[in-house]
Amino acid sequence: MSADTGFDPRTGSSLQEVAHSSSDEVDRVVAAARDAADAVAGTAPGDRLRWLEAAADALDAAVDELAELADRETALGDERLRGEVGRMTGELRFYGSVAAEGSYLDATLDTTPMGLIARVEVPLGPVAVFGASNFPFGFGVMGTDTASALAAGCPVVVKAHPAHPATSVRLFEIAHGALVGAGAPEGVLGLVAGFAAGSLLVQHPDIRAVAFTGSQRGGMALRALAQDRAEVIPVYAEMGTVNPAVVTPSATSRIEDVATGFVGSFTLGSGQFCTKPGLLLGPRGSSDAVAAALTAAAPQPVMLTETIKHSLDAGVEELVAAGGEVVVRSGGDSGGWSAPAVLLRAPLDALVPGNRLLEEVFGAVAVVVEYDDLDDALAHVDALQGSLAASVLTSGPDDPDAPRVVDRVRRRVGRVVVDGWPTGVAVTWAQHHGGPWPSTSEPRTTSVGSAALSRFLRPVAFQGASDALLPPALRSDNPWHLPRRVDGVLVVPDPT
Amino acid sequence: MSADTGFDPRTGSSLQEVAHSSSDEVDRVVAAARDAADAVAGTAPGDRLRWLEAAADALDAAVDELAELADRETALGDERLRGEVGRMTGELRFYGSVAAEGSYLDATLDTTPMGLIARVEVPLGPVAVFGASNFPFGFGVMGTDTASALAAGCPVVVKAHPAHPATSVRLFEIAHGALVGAGAPEGVLGLVAGFAAGSLLVQHPDIRAVAFTGSQRGGMALRALAQDRAEVIPVYAEMGTVNPAVVTPSATSRIEDVATGFVGSFTLGSGQFCTKPGLLLGPRGSSDAVAAALTAAAPQPVMLTETIKHSLDAGVEELVAAGGEVVVRSGGDSGGWSAPAVLLRAPLDALVPGNRLLEEVFGAVAVVVEYDDLDDALAHVDALQGSLAASVLTSGPDDPDAPRVVDRVRRRVGRVVVDGWPTGVAVTWAQHHGGPWPSTSEPRTTSVGSAALSRFLRPVAFQGASDALLPPALRSDNPWHLPRRVDGVLVVPDPT
Repeated sequence: MSADTGFDPRTGSSLQEVAHSSSDEVDRVVAAARDAADAVAGTAPGDRLRWLEAAADALDAAVDELAELADRETALGDERLRGEVGRMTGELRFYGSVAAEGSYLDATLDTTPMGLIARVEVPLGPVAVFGASNFPFGFGVMGTDTASALAAGCPVVVKAHPAHPATSVRLFEIAHGALVGAGAPEGVLGLVAGFAAGSLLVQHPDIRAVAFTGSQRGGMALRALAQDRAEVIPVYAEMGTVNPAVVTPSATSRIEDVATGFVGSFTLGSGQFCTKPGLLLGPRGSSDAVAAALTAAAPQPVMLTETIKHSLDAGVEELVAAGGEVVVRSGGDSGGWSAPAVLLRAPLDALVPGNRLLEEVFGAVAVVVEYDDLDDALAHVDALQGSLAASVLTSGPDDPDAPRVVDRVRRRVGRVVVDGWPTGVAVTWAQHHGGPWPSTSEPRTTSVGSAALSRFLRPVAFQGASDALLPPALRSDNPWHLPRRVDGVLVVPDPT
Repeated sequence: MSADTGFDPRTGSSLQEVAHSSSDEVDRVVAAARDAADAVAGTAPGDRLRWLEAAADALDAAVDELAELADRETALGDERLRGEVGRMTGELRFYGSVAAEGSYLDATLDTTPMGLIARVEVPLGPVAVFGASNFPFGFGVMGTDTASALAAGCPVVVKAHPAHPATSVRLFEIAHGALVGAGAPEGVLGLVAGFAAGSLLVQHPDIRAVAFTGSQRGGMALRALAQDRAEVIPVYAEMGTVNPAVVTPSATSRIEDVATGFVGSFTLGSGQFCTKPGLLLGPRGSSDAVAAALTAAAPQPVMLTETIKHSLDAGVEELVAAGGEVVVRSGGDSGGWSAPAVLLRAPLDALVPGNRLLEEVFGAVAVVVEYDDLDDALAHVDALQGSLAASVLTSGPDDPDAPRVVDRVRRRVGRVVVDGWPTGVAVTWAQHHGGPWPSTSEPRTTSVGSAALSRFLRPVAFQGASDALLPPALRSDNPWHLPRRVDGVLVVPDPT
């Protein structure tokens, strides 16, 4: 295969092709990124904000074209895709503003007997980004990884996703034009296509970090490639896991609401979210309530790719083999890459480490496990794979069991949602979209939220250097008006 | 071998034995750490500061005993060792105060349409610490890794260093007694001994992170063990590299000063520093000046262990085989584990990637490489291994070449020292003691300075949680008086 071919998931018919990049093309694109690295890193964060705003404006202006193109390739629907374009452009502006605020540089200056010791974060250099199948905009060519790497001062080379090749190319064209038009160097953004090109990227000595969103298999493969390099580089892989939801005993009083919310969340976007809640631990009776809600909703999922559709079918069989029992199966017969929404039930004692029931099936598939005793249920929470997020469903602020459920669940996840659902990740300063291994390969990092920038930086300290030898962030006149820690005291400049 | 045996490096005669820990003992020690983890994590940072101060006070009170014990096992000398006890206790107090200040928690709260999203750093859990041979106190049982992990809220299990087993045991006894006396749980600190026990520690499912200071071979071996775990954990290995010093052309005017400083730095502590400058790139004539300074100093190094002594001898042979020429050899014949101080000279064109001359020889060994043209020399800086630190020696504030030398050198190191030497790492907020691969296995982290705590934490976000379900750091009344970011604005509480 020498090209990525788009397909219409609703019919299975083929669409536009995008040629795979040759080894020489990968070298050229990475060389351009390397040549741009000093200029991108040396640009004041406030000027990089303007680059990102220009890209956001251009992409917003192309929303009609982008949503239509992506809907043909993903079948995610016009409304969702328009909203996701807004999410993407919001992220570009948000990460730019985080950079401009300047705390991300962690500028720190100490007067010592050895002279001034001053530390600042510096960009790592060119970053390779592997976007996700399920968010062509939010986690695509100009998604959260690209936006946060650019904001941090690193050029980016994206590997186009084969599930939406034409969308990837148009995103690149529009964003590259806008970035360069705003003053960024040519090599600030590059695009390659094809599996082989992706491997070459990760192995290329001028690539300094990798960001990936997708399956555990894909993330671990890239990580293994990076570990074999002469100079090992970080791979920030954000991977799917089961994302448990735990319902307290007293929440039985509103179990229909809980069941409706759970069905809405696990079937959203055909269940193709890395934050999909795949396992509900609820009091006796929960599975009947969820079954009723799913039957009433009667979703008709269509999957992004043929591979994902087949993986879902195989995954459901694996869950059954592992002790799951199918309770409701809905849809899956509307042609193209339609697949069923499936609800299974399993006994509590099946939740032991290594059991397939504790692992993700990508798609609108979920397992309900009922408990008689909450402490029995919580003892099984420790066995769960590390997850990006979990929900805790309570009877309200006075629920006596909520504190200990939250305390237990937070040990296995990066985000705890109380009386809500994990799908839908707000882009804010406080957001954390990461979690214990294997939900992320680097559990101390996040791919969404202000801390996303720090993945692409490393500290450098200067000792005994005069002002003229220091980078702007550390100079005595603080030309970038940064929050800085001076002799141990955090100093926040007045807003100007 | 079933015990670590201490040796007197001055004579080679054996000293006290410390029995190796059995597999059952390792399990018991780790279980105690696991059982203590919640209490340590849940203690307010200001109370952990008091634990650390109690340990520091007890260790300060034992300085006579500790310095004498360590001098017998390391031959590092009474003055140096007394100073190092002070460094160790200063670190315990410093990291405690960093924790008490509270910025390390990165508490962040956002009002969003989904409710409150609030994020805080939480301790990873029990940490395994492997100290260094060359700093029995500063990087030992109660050194920088242990102090920063405890300050961050993690119990620590230390593997005793075989180069100073009796010192390790006494440090543990004194510190453990003081910590528990101050209110810490029994399992806050543990000690095991022996190579096998160290491997078991890294593989133990209840160990959540590893900190190591030592050789590249040792660090990489621990890292490989951790990568093979079912749940991979971070290994923060701080490893030796060559730490280049670059002398500008105009610094020739003070080449004797530079040469004397270089000799003082690379022979300090028998050259047994991870920040030892091992390579000097200087203008034509530099090697004669350094040779004269070394001849005048006539050091008589004694190495910490027999293995280190033999590695030094072998390392010098490897440097010669790689194109180095021995210029001065001093000492090495005073009995015990004495070894020579060795100065070599090598041509600039030998500095190509993979050449042994670019790698560390642990001990008082250094290579001088002369250049005729500064740009030729700087082109070779890119070939250097990533290093913890580098020096730039200039003719003063008006040196026209200093800016571009600093800019080039900082790309390959974690710390740039201008007109000074890298040995001697001040413990301050701004310090960075880390550097590009392979000087550290996680180049974004540091083992010295306020950021050392962050190695032992991961973020957790809470969404839609009421005050009662949030940890203290995120509650509306901010009971720990933390600096917090609220709706994007950094709020620093008034000092109380």
